[in-house]
Amino acid sequence: MSNAKEDRKDEVAELALRRGFLWQSFEIYGGAAGFYDYGPLGALLKRGVEAEWRRFYCIGEGFYEIEATTIAPRDIFEASGHLKSFADMAVACKSCKTFFRVDEGINIGKRCPECGGELVDAGEFNLMFQTKIGVPKGERDESAQKKSEGYLRPETAQGIFINFPRLLRFNRDKLPLGIIQIGKAYRNEISPRKSLIRLREFTMAEAEIFVDPREKDRHPKFDTVKDRAMRLVPGEGEETEMSVEAAVKSGIITNEYLGYHVAKVGEFLERIGIPKDKLRFRQHRKDEMAHYARDCWDAEFLSERYGWMEIVGVADRGDYDLSVHASFSNTDMSVHAQSDTEQEKLIPHVIEPSFGIDRIIYALLESSLYKEQVGKEKRKVLRFKKEIAPIKAAVFPLLNRDELKEKAKEVFQKLREESIFVEYDASGSIGRRYRRQDEIGTPYCITIDYDTLEDDTVTVRERDTMEQVRVPIAEVKDVLLL
Amino acid sequence: MSNAKEDRKDEVAELALRRGFLWQSFEIYGGAAGFYDYGPLGALLKRGVEAEWRRFYCIGEGFYEIEATTIAPRDIFEASGHLKSFADMAVACKSCKTFFRVDEGINIGKRCPECGGELVDAGEFNLMFQTKIGVPKGERDESAQKKSEGYLRPETAQGIFINFPRLLRFNRDKLPLGIIQIGKAYRNEISPRKSLIRLREFTMAEAEIFVDPREKDRHPKFDTVKDRAMRLVPGEGEETEMSVEAAVKSGIITNEYLGYHVAKVGEFLERIGIPKDKLRFRQHRKDEMAHYARDCWDAEFLSERYGWMEIVGVADRGDYDLSVHASFSNTDMSVHAQSDTEQEKLIPHVIEPSFGIDRIIYALLESSLYKEQVGKEKRKVLRFKKEIAPIKAAVFPLLNRDELKEKAKEVFQKLREESIFVEYDASGSIGRRYRRQDEIGTPYCITIDYDTLEDDTVTVRERDTMEQVRVPIAEVKDVLLL
Repeated sequence: MSNAKEDRKDEVAELALRRGFLWQSFEIYGGAAGFYDYGPLGALLKRGVEAEWRRFYCIGEGFYEIEATTIAPRDIFEASGHLKSFADMAVACKSCKTFFRVDEGINIGKRCPECGGELVDAGEFNLMFQTKIGVPKGERDESAQKKSEGYLRPETAQGIFINFPRLLRFNRDKLPLGIIQIGKAYRNEISPRKSLIRLREFTMAEAEIFVDPREKDRHPKFDTVKDRAMRLVPGEGEETEMSVEAAVKSGIITNEYLGYHVAKVGEFLERIGIPKDKLRFRQHRKDEMAHYARDCWDAEFLSERYGWMEIVGVADRGDYDLSVHASFSNTDMSVHAQSDTEQEKLIPHVIEPSFGIDRIIYALLESSLYKEQVGKEKRKVLRFKKEIAPIKAAVFPLLNRDELKEKAKEVFQKLREESIFVEYDASGSIGRRYRRQDEIGTPYCITIDYDTLEDDTVTVRERDTMEQVRVPIAEVKDVLLL
Repeated sequence: MSNAKEDRKDEVAELALRRGFLWQSFEIYGGAAGFYDYGPLGALLKRGVEAEWRRFYCIGEGFYEIEATTIAPRDIFEASGHLKSFADMAVACKSCKTFFRVDEGINIGKRCPECGGELVDAGEFNLMFQTKIGVPKGERDESAQKKSEGYLRPETAQGIFINFPRLLRFNRDKLPLGIIQIGKAYRNEISPRKSLIRLREFTMAEAEIFVDPREKDRHPKFDTVKDRAMRLVPGEGEETEMSVEAAVKSGIITNEYLGYHVAKVGEFLERIGIPKDKLRFRQHRKDEMAHYARDCWDAEFLSERYGWMEIVGVADRGDYDLSVHASFSNTDMSVHAQSDTEQEKLIPHVIEPSFGIDRIIYALLESSLYKEQVGKEKRKVLRFKKEIAPIKAAVFPLLNRDELKEKAKEVFQKLREESIFVEYDASGSIGRRYRRQDEIGTPYCITIDYDTLEDDTVTVRERDTMEQVRVPIAEVKDVLLL
């Protein structure tokens, strides 16, 4: 890797920390691996991405959001298979007693990466965080103990599946039915690296689309995506570039419904600013497929730091989840579907795009950061799309004079009243203030000078081109919202 | 209580369940006390309230949002005092082994409410959900075990306090500094009743305002709230109605900063639709004050079902939290403040409005539901404010004819493209469709008829007055957003 690249990798982390995007959690207590907090700018960026995601699926696809709990009793995960299958193999170091997740670099035969000690098999560890609901510890009998076991959800999806009968009624017993959820999910990783990539607590945005299995081969809006070119890595065979339509027709993507949603994931990621040339879709091999999946495609982002990394998974979960919950809870999860001759009862299939919001935030930070020579200086600029930029505009008085500050505050206040999230900054030279805003991705800077007091116009400077135009105050809002 | 009232109480619950606002969690597995899910309309309502809340504090007050983790290690709660003080007394039934929280109705001497058995002291129970971070159970020594203990946060506030040094730097070392957070918090209640009022998992929206203790007696914007009339129940003495200014001047509310935020809470609750005549502010008595509080006022809503219930708490936490974290983590939590002669180091005080979002949702549902005689029929209507109504408008074809349906779908699509959350409904009589929308609080119904095909105008019917006006399609958007 070149030095320039090395520099940039560190700059992403350094900038994210310094400007208040991302902070190691519990830092004053020494931190804990696998936990990150969003600082003020990070939270604004995340809110922006989540709002775009909601708009995309609720307004665009007509899906409805629900909000289920993050804790659930043992029953749910016994049925879903997570108690049995959501586990990693671990090894432990005989000398320093540290536990490690088994992967390519760490297994029996290798030495401990911490102290060089001998590694021994430590068995399988379930990755769900366990807790107790209500019943005090050490009391009651074993079955009551089991009944009181609760787990933090490893995905938001189960909260949707177990509400399916009510959701179906809400939708007047009709398919298809698309339900989304955004919220925290948890994985008690054995040995997470200290980064945003393998978190123990993270935010998922998931859509569960319930569909008549006989209709999976045609999506009513497939025409709107069919020509989208995709970089695909099939489970078997070589990487290739082709249209979604060709991928479905050739059987690489197993059905049109799944193909449609793979394409929509690509569309969403590009819309919020993930560069198309750093994006590919990789199909899971049979041996890495989750226990519930029939086919699964990961949207992967090419990170300079981590290589190709999964940021979204799009799975065909078939009837797995509804069937196991129907059987474990003894509940009817079927739908009456019209067929040619009679009413048929069938279990819907589920197509699921599942977004890792934290990884997407990382990908946005890394791919948006540019370093440019401007005159004698270097400037760092985060080229966020306007829709997700944390601060929409900054308002400056040109000089530190009362009459300019007063006018600038007036402009600032007016924009705030329009519910536009703007900042006011009067400290340091104007050049320094521009650099500060460039670095956090603010699309526009608005400067108030002595001409403003005369003719009510201001200077609006655009972040990427650094071009400045003179605009009447009354029109500033339209420029920002363009 | 009158029968009419009894009826209405049940109607709130029945409507919330039937129309998809609120569902008992894990229902197909028999449910679990203290957990509720938001269905599609409930989630939309909650999103609306949260958006208004963010606008109120971020845009209105200039506060910044952060997002900290919901799990935190033992250290944090050892320092905050929650490990020691966040506990309830319990009794257990000798025969059926059920545990109960000690309150007015249940204590030793009383009989078990489930089986009539004898109740015995069961000691104190900490209300935090405990879990293990990373380290497998039964391994390592005791200090490693303790180190791996994690807890689900009982309030979002601690995530803000432990980030204070970074937040202060973000704010360029200046006070005041207002930070908000919206997210899940948890209380492992011993015996929650099955309702939205005492949940084990719930959503809090909290603002922590860090202020120079010498400035607590004057808030720069106090003039904007000082005349607000408030119904106050002081810790000592009788209920009274007076202005915030009078309450601060007479010492009932201990300082102007706290008074300002008590008033703002009232303003927010009224803005989203909590009726002023069902709202009062009650001061905590010395013996019920949380371990961290110097003064605390609860905003209480008068529920027909539960009587006066807390929906917001506004506390003066003094320097308690920053001081204990400074001492436990050995971190400097002080601010350099300008005084007349020199730079002084001081620990900021914290004023904290803390909103229980789920209880507010319940209060909105209960206080918005009206039952009216319309001609021969009764209609149920949820008189939500437009800003928080789940569905902003419904679009109907007058008759079930292709040409009307096509035009109605076009209008529907156009409004969706403006990011307005509208519904389309073509089933049943027009009267029935109106009732359906009234019941979920949709402010407007838009009907497409044969005149629409001629002159591109539609009928817009307003929910509360049931008045209908004829509006050109191009102007519908403006009517909805008015």
